[in-house]
Amino acid sequence: MFDTFAALLDWFGIVVFATTGALVASRKQMDVVGFVLLGTATGIGGGTIRDTLINALPVFWVREPVYLVTCVFVSCAAFFLAHIPQSRLRLLLWCDAIGMALFAVTGAEKALLVEASPIVAIAMGVVTATFGGIVRDVLGGESPVILSREIYVSAALSGAAIFVVLALAGISREYALAGGFLAALAIRAAALQWDWSLPRYRPRPGRSRDEIDPR
Amino acid sequence: MFDTFAALLDWFGIVVFATTGALVASRKQMDVVGFVLLGTATGIGGGTIRDTLINALPVFWVREPVYLVTCVFVSCAAFFLAHIPQSRLRLLLWCDAIGMALFAVTGAEKALLVEASPIVAIAMGVVTATFGGIVRDVLGGESPVILSREIYVSAALSGAAIFVVLALAGISREYALAGGFLAALAIRAAALQWDWSLPRYRPRPGRSRDEIDPR
Amino acid sequence: MFDTFAALLDWFGIVVFATTGALVASRKQMDVVGFVLLGTATGIGGGTIRDTLINALPVFWVREPVYLVTCVFVSCAAFFLAHIPQSRLRLLLWCDAIGMALFAVTGAEKALLVEASPIVAIAMGVVTATFGGIVRDVLGGESPVILSREIYVSAALSGAAIFVVLALAGISREYALAGGFLAALAIRAAALQWDWSLPRYRPRPGRSRDEIDPR
Repeated sequence: MFDTFAALLDWFGIVVFATTGALVASRKQMDVVGFVLLGTATGIGGGTIRDTLINALPVFWVREPVYLVTCVFVSCAAFFLAHIPQSRLRLLLWCDAIGMALFAVTGAEKALLVEASPIVAIAMGVVTATFGGIVRDVLGGESPVILSREIYVSAALSGAAIFVVLALAGISREYALAGGFLAALAIRAAALQWDWSLPRYRPRPGRSRDEIDPR
Repeated sequence: MFDTFAALLDWFGIVVFATTGALVASRKQMDVVGFVLLGTATGIGGGTIRDTLINALPVFWVREPVYLVTCVFVSCAAFFLAHIPQSRLRLLLWCDAIGMALFAVTGAEKALLVEASPIVAIAMGVVTATFGGIVRDVLGGESPVILSREIYVSAALSGAAIFVVLALAGISREYALAGGFLAALAIRAAALQWDWSLPRYRPRPGRSRDEIDPR
Repeated sequence: MFDTFAALLDWFGIVVFATTGALVASRKQMDVVGFVLLGTATGIGGGTIRDTLINALPVFWVREPVYLVTCVFVSCAAFFLAHIPQSRLRLLLWCDAIGMALFAVTGAEKALLVEASPIVAIAMGVVTATFGGIVRDVLGGESPVILSREIYVSAALSGAAIFVVLALAGISREYALAGGFLAALAIRAAALQWDWSLPRYRPRPGRSRDEIDPR
């Protein structure tokens, strides 16, 4: 069923991300088909965009339908059990952090395997880790995640970059994966725990909002 | 011009979907280029995403530009004639139901033709039938269709599933297509006629909206 | 670094578009990672969708990471220097017009090079020139550009069409590119200067908004 340890990590990330998609469906009080559509899009959206960009087509879940079946199953289960993760919001945020950290390194690794350049591999880690959530927000009519003030994309970027640097430095695959994963998770965990955020752009005083409209 | 009966069905579905996209453009009082962009994206959006996912690239309308020409023509015509379908909103909803039911079975069939697994073929039917409308809603700044309380995605899912089951059971292609199409259309028609909807997720009483926010 | 003059034009268009994306990030007061994500998506979004549709995969920036590096660099610079283009909004609008006109012709040319039909090549010019901005608006939570009342998509369409007609008429590549580019730029410039717009669809009097809702 799973050829590699990385495939198992991917599968766990998909379970967690599908759950977060289903939770958005529960906030919008959708029916069970809405849960499946939103949970599935969130679970496999990031990897789908990655596979398209690096030409690993057909996308992974067309080749290995177990990922699709998993998303459908998790989303259906969430329809009946959504009150459980809701009452454990803190737990869910941590699971989401684990999924993000997993996808940041496995996404970057898949790009390296098709001989993408290092900066492209880092970008693919970020895409895999964050675009599932962006698809979820667009489909679900939520404010896009990158507008949030929390550290999230930055954590994925750091984890993917550390993995790529370690892998290119000749560190063995397992340690490089572990290093990138732990870095992304630690940064996100610290941000969750102590409300960390990066400095934000501040317009000069005396400038109106209209004046800085690019259109 | 059309090699197969299925290509003709596809073409009719595209005409209907392009019309629904142009009608959204008319609500937003766009100019004729806005009509063409929104009508075309709606007409060919679902099939474009399907072709990318199953690696049937370049996408169908790059290989057969007649579909693109059709969308442009229909959208331009709608700019001058949009008051006609507007005064026949009920007719349009029925045409949209026919387009959805057609795309659900032809989308699933295209996936089977490239030897996708059954569950992937069902997913491709749903993607073809519903993602054109999702693209329309995102580009047009409308609330996404899957947030709607009506039975729509469910009807596409049922039709695609029935087609795939019939096709795998050895039923001849024409009957399997007809069976899936009629099932999807009947479910959607019943939902339109009697305001059917699936049971929706309900949060437990005493829980605030903030508490169930996944972020 | 750049094989052809067209690659250099592409690069300049990407710089300008990444800047417009970063300016939207500055309006939303994002952090530096938000600037990079939004600037990069805007700079390479249109070309990415074009490459996928015509099956020129992996997409151009996976093959030539210099484009990705450029977007990251421009977006980071904008985080520290965004007050400069902000105080030169008029200059930015003109740069954006140049980027749009460049992408309209280089996008159409890339499609012709893979032997797409003329109408598909025109569509690819429009996709390359306008979908980066659409991705920017969706990710940034802005109202989509095609809802704007200005002439923008129409200018890209005209430029791409003129380039394709000239190229198919046997005009040498440089002149065809220049002709399409200047046409798109002139139309957009005139629209900016004199607030040109195309006639818009107007519903018949006495019809309520609800009545024309397609759903």
